[in-house]
Amino acid sequence: MINLQKILKDGKALFLAYDHGMEHGAAEFSAKSSEASREGGTGYIKAVDPSYILDIAHKGGYTAVILHKGVAEKYYLSWGADERKCVPLIIKLNGKTSIPDVEPYSPLVCSVEEAIELGASAVGYTIYLGSEKESTMLWEFGEVVREAHRAGIPAIGWIYPRGKWVKERYGSDTNPKVVAYAARVGLELGADIVKIKYTGDRKSFAEAVAAAGRTKVVLSGGEKTEKEEEFLQTLKDVMAAGAIGVAVGRNVWKSRDPLKITEKIKKTVFS
Amino acid sequence: MINLQKILKDGKALFLAYDHGMEHGAAEFSAKSSEASREGGTGYIKAVDPSYILDIAHKGGYTAVILHKGVAEKYYLSWGADERKCVPLIIKLNGKTSIPDVEPYSPLVCSVEEAIELGASAVGYTIYLGSEKESTMLWEFGEVVREAHRAGIPAIGWIYPRGKWVKERYGSDTNPKVVAYAARVGLELGADIVKIKYTGDRKSFAEAVAAAGRTKVVLSGGEKTEKEEEFLQTLKDVMAAGAIGVAVGRNVWKSRDPLKITEKIKKTVFS
Amino acid sequence: MINLQKILKDGKALFLAYDHGMEHGAAEFSAKSSEASREGGTGYIKAVDPSYILDIAHKGGYTAVILHKGVAEKYYLSWGADERKCVPLIIKLNGKTSIPDVEPYSPLVCSVEEAIELGASAVGYTIYLGSEKESTMLWEFGEVVREAHRAGIPAIGWIYPRGKWVKERYGSDTNPKVVAYAARVGLELGADIVKIKYTGDRKSFAEAVAAAGRTKVVLSGGEKTEKEEEFLQTLKDVMAAGAIGVAVGRNVWKSRDPLKITEKIKKTVFS
Amino acid sequence: MINLQKILKDGKALFLAYDHGMEHGAAEFSAKSSEASREGGTGYIKAVDPSYILDIAHKGGYTAVILHKGVAEKYYLSWGADERKCVPLIIKLNGKTSIPDVEPYSPLVCSVEEAIELGASAVGYTIYLGSEKESTMLWEFGEVVREAHRAGIPAIGWIYPRGKWVKERYGSDTNPKVVAYAARVGLELGADIVKIKYTGDRKSFAEAVAAAGRTKVVLSGGEKTEKEEEFLQTLKDVMAAGAIGVAVGRNVWKSRDPLKITEKIKKTVFS
Amino acid sequence: MINLQKILKDGKALFLAYDHGMEHGAAEFSAKSSEASREGGTGYIKAVDPSYILDIAHKGGYTAVILHKGVAEKYYLSWGADERKCVPLIIKLNGKTSIPDVEPYSPLVCSVEEAIELGASAVGYTIYLGSEKESTMLWEFGEVVREAHRAGIPAIGWIYPRGKWVKERYGSDTNPKVVAYAARVGLELGADIVKIKYTGDRKSFAEAVAAAGRTKVVLSGGEKTEKEEEFLQTLKDVMAAGAIGVAVGRNVWKSRDPLKITEKIKKTVFS
Repeated sequence: MINLQKILKDGKALFLAYDHGMEHGAAEFSAKSSEASREGGTGYIKAVDPSYILDIAHKGGYTAVILHKGVAEKYYLSWGADERKCVPLIIKLNGKTSIPDVEPYSPLVCSVEEAIELGASAVGYTIYLGSEKESTMLWEFGEVVREAHRAGIPAIGWIYPRGKWVKERYGSDTNPKVVAYAARVGLELGADIVKIKYTGDRKSFAEAVAAAGRTKVVLSGGEKTEKEEEFLQTLKDVMAAGAIGVAVGRNVWKSRDPLKITEKIKKTVFS
Repeated sequence: MINLQKILKDGKALFLAYDHGMEHGAAEFSAKSSEASREGGTGYIKAVDPSYILDIAHKGGYTAVILHKGVAEKYYLSWGADERKCVPLIIKLNGKTSIPDVEPYSPLVCSVEEAIELGASAVGYTIYLGSEKESTMLWEFGEVVREAHRAGIPAIGWIYPRGKWVKERYGSDTNPKVVAYAARVGLELGADIVKIKYTGDRKSFAEAVAAAGRTKVVLSGGEKTEKEEEFLQTLKDVMAAGAIGVAVGRNVWKSRDPLKITEKIKKTVFS
Repeated sequence: MINLQKILKDGKALFLAYDHGMEHGAAEFSAKSSEASREGGTGYIKAVDPSYILDIAHKGGYTAVILHKGVAEKYYLSWGADERKCVPLIIKLNGKTSIPDVEPYSPLVCSVEEAIELGASAVGYTIYLGSEKESTMLWEFGEVVREAHRAGIPAIGWIYPRGKWVKERYGSDTNPKVVAYAARVGLELGADIVKIKYTGDRKSFAEAVAAAGRTKVVLSGGEKTEKEEEFLQTLKDVMAAGAIGVAVGRNVWKSRDPLKITEKIKKTVFS
Repeated sequence: MINLQKILKDGKALFLAYDHGMEHGAAEFSAKSSEASREGGTGYIKAVDPSYILDIAHKGGYTAVILHKGVAEKYYLSWGADERKCVPLIIKLNGKTSIPDVEPYSPLVCSVEEAIELGASAVGYTIYLGSEKESTMLWEFGEVVREAHRAGIPAIGWIYPRGKWVKERYGSDTNPKVVAYAARVGLELGADIVKIKYTGDRKSFAEAVAAAGRTKVVLSGGEKTEKEEEFLQTLKDVMAAGAIGVAVGRNVWKSRDPLKITEKIKKTVFS
Repeated sequence: MINLQKILKDGKALFLAYDHGMEHGAAEFSAKSSEASREGGTGYIKAVDPSYILDIAHKGGYTAVILHKGVAEKYYLSWGADERKCVPLIIKLNGKTSIPDVEPYSPLVCSVEEAIELGASAVGYTIYLGSEKESTMLWEFGEVVREAHRAGIPAIGWIYPRGKWVKERYGSDTNPKVVAYAARVGLELGADIVKIKYTGDRKSFAEAVAAAGRTKVVLSGGEKTEKEEEFLQTLKDVMAAGAIGVAVGRNVWKSRDPLKITEKIKKTVFS
């Protein structure tokens, strides 16, 4: 049996995502592009330090934290046992940088077996639907699901339509049709949770949730929004549409007060 | 020995296919493009829900249901034991989306071993003959046949000519010559059943059946037809031509009354 | 030790080849393009049915029959034990269709181990020398030879120069220089028998035989010739040049009387 | 536990790098392009001889020497046991030549297991971020980290942004933003040490060090500088910025007096 | 320990190379392009027959013979035990034909394990430095070295710069700089012997030998030269430059009197 409850609380998901150093670079932590206060000595905000993020995850009551294997090994593993029990680990298995402008593909940098050894309670993998390398990612995710399910842990699909065909055929990667397609692909491939983008309105997001069937849906938090209220309203709509929660990152640790915004998010998710 | 009888009844095949969420997207379940009634709350018809499909399969007396591994694991496995006994499972091993406009290739997303663990009585794999990636699919299907036959279960080939060479050399993918070629490739590679398209007339379909030899032939149901009678006449011709049945999907669950059309199909197949 | 005698008689080879349904399509069995009589009910000649071919192989006294794994499993395996003893099996391990116009490459669709389980006394593999994918085929044939020789059975190389470089550098794929090159590649890679095309005259074919050294040479029968006498004369020249026999297909089962032409071929090969 | 101390002294790193014969060719040892004195009989400096390098490593008190597997096997392994104890071995696992002008990619030429058999206390692997083959290197480094950590030895990442996208998007491969990105990728992937280039000033290098978190940073020594003082000043800045040391090569063995410059470097690193 | 002495005599190498049937075709044995006398019955010289070559190797006192696996299995293995003891076997592990004009790459057609089973005392592998497929060959040679050294036998690298980048950057593949680079790559990758081309003069060849360090150097014999004395002078220069011998083929078996030229070569190598 696949144990999904370990990374949920009352069936709801509040994931703190922190794989941006790989996906976007250290510039993501630049004090210039953030409301958050600087860290002493560098031009970065405190969030450049994984320990600070773990602290937020713990104090904020997140139901899980999402890390790449290197950060997991060097920070999560040496965290206190109590903290680790409180905040389960989700390992992001694949990753890429934003440096080359190539066909979207994110290779595996960690195996499911390795993730489990690092204490992961679930694993995540990104599929870029519509990429010319889509077939490679479908195959790899098939393997990830198989290995995760044999080990009894959930497989989470970050399923993002991307690339020229998405633009040509759907106009945007948040077109409700293509987001619902993504959600459905997650179900067909055996994902236990899919992380998808907001479609723009509650009704169309509910269709994506319906398309996902018994696969749970979490909202992808996305870039730091300027208007906090707007973000919270989106989250409210998404929960009303049947999602089980959100994976949030920049909107928390780039904000002036991460724990304060966390409280507001929790209120929305767990209400 | 390969046990083909498990997915047949009186030697005939009535398969309910349901892999369209992967191949075409959730838009396939849109109420707008369907005669079927809406599901409460979304713009989809009831068929968006795999449970509804399983229900049709059971009530309709289908000899097997065709699913991707995710749907099998989350719905079929938790179905009642009696229902599962009545409606055996065929797992579709490979899949792709329709988002990118790339050379036709559908990667493996499930292994034969995994399919068997999910309770499959047979496995299916799609080959796009004529694709620039044809050689990869021929090789993968070779592996699928080997593993399936070692486990004693049938391997079904969805064998579809596709791509620019088919158009250039045969005009259409339903040209009798290329359909018969597809059927023959199934035999040569060790498929126990081939699923092929209708050639347009009984006589030429009989040639495809002859080309397949001891490999059984089922008709690919295809898109929802507007004229039900036409579809049933095709099925009648195909059975008369020596096919053992049909894999039907959209013509059932997109129709106003799935069980009613099922009865008509059964009458044709089992007569 | 590699047992070559099982597929020979008095050191001579009379192979009935029947992989054309894969390589050329069912159209190869069309009654329109053949002298042979139609089969009842379809536009095909009787040769569309593998049972008919096995019957010819047995009655005609062929020293082996060449089949793809699917035909072997569904027909050869269920043949009588006596018949199988009389007519040993050669499995063609790789194959492709003629539908796409791509760089010549024929992927493995059957492993050596699988072939042996199906009762094969030898295995065959096609290399298209000069293809941009030549390196893949050289590597795969290297593996085939290794596995076959470990199991003690012969590896036969269908070694055909093909593609734009052959045309540009040799003018034709039957240029004696490139045919001798093909024969030599067979020897260097460890083939026990090479199947090559006719060079056009006895003297140059003898050079190909010399280039092959201890690797035996059989003639590739090729397309159905209109003039039977010409074909038999070619065979006579080839035997005089040192070949050990022929792999014949269409010139037998597309002829008006397969057993009659077989007798003439046997007379030439075994004289 | 990963033993990092074996290749450090007082927590500092002074690595003598010697993989240039592979990466740049024997021309790197040309007496013409070097201040160092010639070796008898050829146009090379003494550094062409690996024994000479090992001698410098030992006399100079380097905390480790970096070699490709061939040099390790033929020189390091036959060195005295005392010397090997004094100067631990780091094997560079991947390499390429500078001959073809192709997309940057450096394949594995030695496995982690093999490196350990050759006595390695750590392994190194180069990733060219921004290459069209970035995904292959991310995957391979993921494997290297996994195998190294299972064996308890450190994995060092040479992480260099390179290629057209780096130029287009960052202007230069020493742009502080892209160097910090490289350092961060090392942390995310599980590197224990990253070897990166100088960003041009102490403050921005400190940001790269901050981005690397618990992954240690060593400076890549780079080409032979004409002004020794400038190189030492860079090293001073880098150490002040939080680096643990330097991997130096050409600036040592291409200098007039390798041990003298070594002393100056040591003073900077260990002060 | 790697046993290099088995294929040497008094530390010197006199290898008879015979892989030309694969690399250049049977045309290499054409009587028209050779001083050697014809073989009875064909347009070839006697050298088309591997038995004749083995005879030269034995009578000529060669320290080893270089063969592809097919020739080794069909001729060397059935040679007398005494002869095999006198003339050890080096198996060439990779090969390609000269038919397609593609980016230089020579795939593995024999594994190290297989070579050892065929009685090989050493194995050889060709790397084309500068090819767009260089990385594949570096990786494969890395594997070959590992497997050979685990079995205790030497790995020989045929290291040839080739392709458009070599021409563009070095002018010619015998430019001393690129030949020395090739020799050095052999050392770095763990080759026990490198086979390289002549640089044109003794001094520059000595630099290639210095670059190779403890990796031994043998001259690649190359095409049949018209002037025997010139070839012998090259060999004299090469030996004086520190090489341990030569791998010769066409200059022996294409000459009027193979044993006579062998005597002259031996005098030069062993003097």
